[in-house]
Amino acid sequence: MAGEIYYSFGFGVLEMKVIETIPEFREVRAGCKGTVGFVPTMGYLHKGHIALVERARQENDCVAVSIFVNPTQFGPKEDFKTYPRDKERDLAMLEPFTDFVFMPSAEEMYPAGYDTWIDVGSITGILEGASRPGHFRGVATVVNKLFNIVQPHNAYFGQKDAQQLRVIQKMVRDLNMPVEVIACPTVREPDGLAMSSRNTYLTPEQRAAAPVLYQSLMMANEMWQTGERDAAAIKKAMIRLIQSQPLAQIDYISIADATTLQEMEACHSPVLVSLAVRFGTTRLIDNLLLE
Amino acid sequence: MAGEIYYSFGFGVLEMKVIETIPEFREVRAGCKGTVGFVPTMGYLHKGHIALVERARQENDCVAVSIFVNPTQFGPKEDFKTYPRDKERDLAMLEPFTDFVFMPSAEEMYPAGYDTWIDVGSITGILEGASRPGHFRGVATVVNKLFNIVQPHNAYFGQKDAQQLRVIQKMVRDLNMPVEVIACPTVREPDGLAMSSRNTYLTPEQRAAAPVLYQSLMMANEMWQTGERDAAAIKKAMIRLIQSQPLAQIDYISIADATTLQEMEACHSPVLVSLAVRFGTTRLIDNLLLE
Repeated sequence: MAGEIYYSFGFGVLEMKVIETIPEFREVRAGCKGTVGFVPTMGYLHKGHIALVERARQENDCVAVSIFVNPTQFGPKEDFKTYPRDKERDLAMLEPFTDFVFMPSAEEMYPAGYDTWIDVGSITGILEGASRPGHFRGVATVVNKLFNIVQPHNAYFGQKDAQQLRVIQKMVRDLNMPVEVIACPTVREPDGLAMSSRNTYLTPEQRAAAPVLYQSLMMANEMWQTGERDAAAIKKAMIRLIQSQPLAQIDYISIADATTLQEMEACHSPVLVSLAVRFGTTRLIDNLLLE
Repeated sequence: MAGEIYYSFGFGVLEMKVIETIPEFREVRAGCKGTVGFVPTMGYLHKGHIALVERARQENDCVAVSIFVNPTQFGPKEDFKTYPRDKERDLAMLEPFTDFVFMPSAEEMYPAGYDTWIDVGSITGILEGASRPGHFRGVATVVNKLFNIVQPHNAYFGQKDAQQLRVIQKMVRDLNMPVEVIACPTVREPDGLAMSSRNTYLTPEQRAAAPVLYQSLMMANEMWQTGERDAAAIKKAMIRLIQSQPLAQIDYISIADATTLQEMEACHSPVLVSLAVRFGTTRLIDNLLLE
């Protein structure tokens, strides 16, 4: 409409800068005024990531997003090499909300002789940590590094990776890192499947079967709401439902204390129900908080 | 002289604040303007510590010193409980140079459920790390925490703890911590004994024998300056000199690459000669850089 002028200046969204080196990032970071919100990602973005970035935009003066497929959180037999990547699409999705995209190389993050690791203790040895040895050491280490580089006031993580969220919260609390970790709800497809970059691996048949994860969580919630407190009974019902899908192979189902992630027999609130299920070589995770 | 007026305001040395909790420290830290220099200590201060604090004072707008006898860097059979402490004397020594003294309790630093540790890799398993398993994990972890609490621009460490200095430099570099680590020369007694809070443990006879550490380093330096490059020959001469003191019991003598601390046979510059020697139950360390 004629006469209306939009000033982008002062809103932080002038032109998105894509930065590949740590010294360059430090330089632009030194120029940031006000609060910095940060969303660390491995790229191949979906609506779940964008929800985090939008929230960071709402709550901060500057928004930084990192795109880094972190080799140290993949096991030797995992999908590091085949993990989906699409830089151009990612940048186009971020452009409306983001001031700085940090896209370092593996050599920039782990130069020759790199040898320092963060161990977040017993919480990293169970569930995903048991299925993926070393995974959370890699996650904690790269997030620690990214926090030291980006120096955000607020950092946004999805509840979908519930254990990762707790590992990072524990690392930040234990190490007194000066950053607020903000947990954001899982974003789902219309049929309930949690958004994940790995959903792209699914064949059409597997994709059709995959909502059984969410369905089993909904069933657990229904049992919980109608008074069931026996973890074994809830697990048994979930297993039966998931096994009704012949393409689904259960890795684990956990009913645990929502903070410590210690397994429970008789449930008391808040409970985290979480599960990992394989469809062929693709491994999906999901979870739900019962309160 | 009449007419001369000194303004302490603006020089940062108004009144030294002693702070015991992390939230309180964060509050005063948020009010600091300009650069912050930091000296982490375990207290029972001597001239070596004060040299670090004076340097921090010269190079920064604000000076913070921590006094914390860190339990996690002591082995179960080491001297954590008997480590010398003298709060009043320490504060009096710091007062002329220091804005903030951070003196947390063990519970403030390691609350119930604490479980996050920094592992700085292979450099922590040799020399002091071999003699004191877990020592550098405790050192790296507490220094990481203190850096996150104090958020200094510059942090000052003595060369006397040469391996500790390298562990911290490596942690800072690997984890991209936004702090400059500044190495300061070892301060010595007139007879050459390196200043150490543990010197207070020595009996008069042991104290009289202890300068043999420095003498052996001086001899190594003389051999080096006159062209000796065979590590075994230098070690052999050092051992003979130290064994001339019947109270001295050698823990290790190392002739190593000054950066990686890997042992050398044929020396090439720069070389770190380091040693640990026991006098009764008291273990002293010292080192010298050959260039």
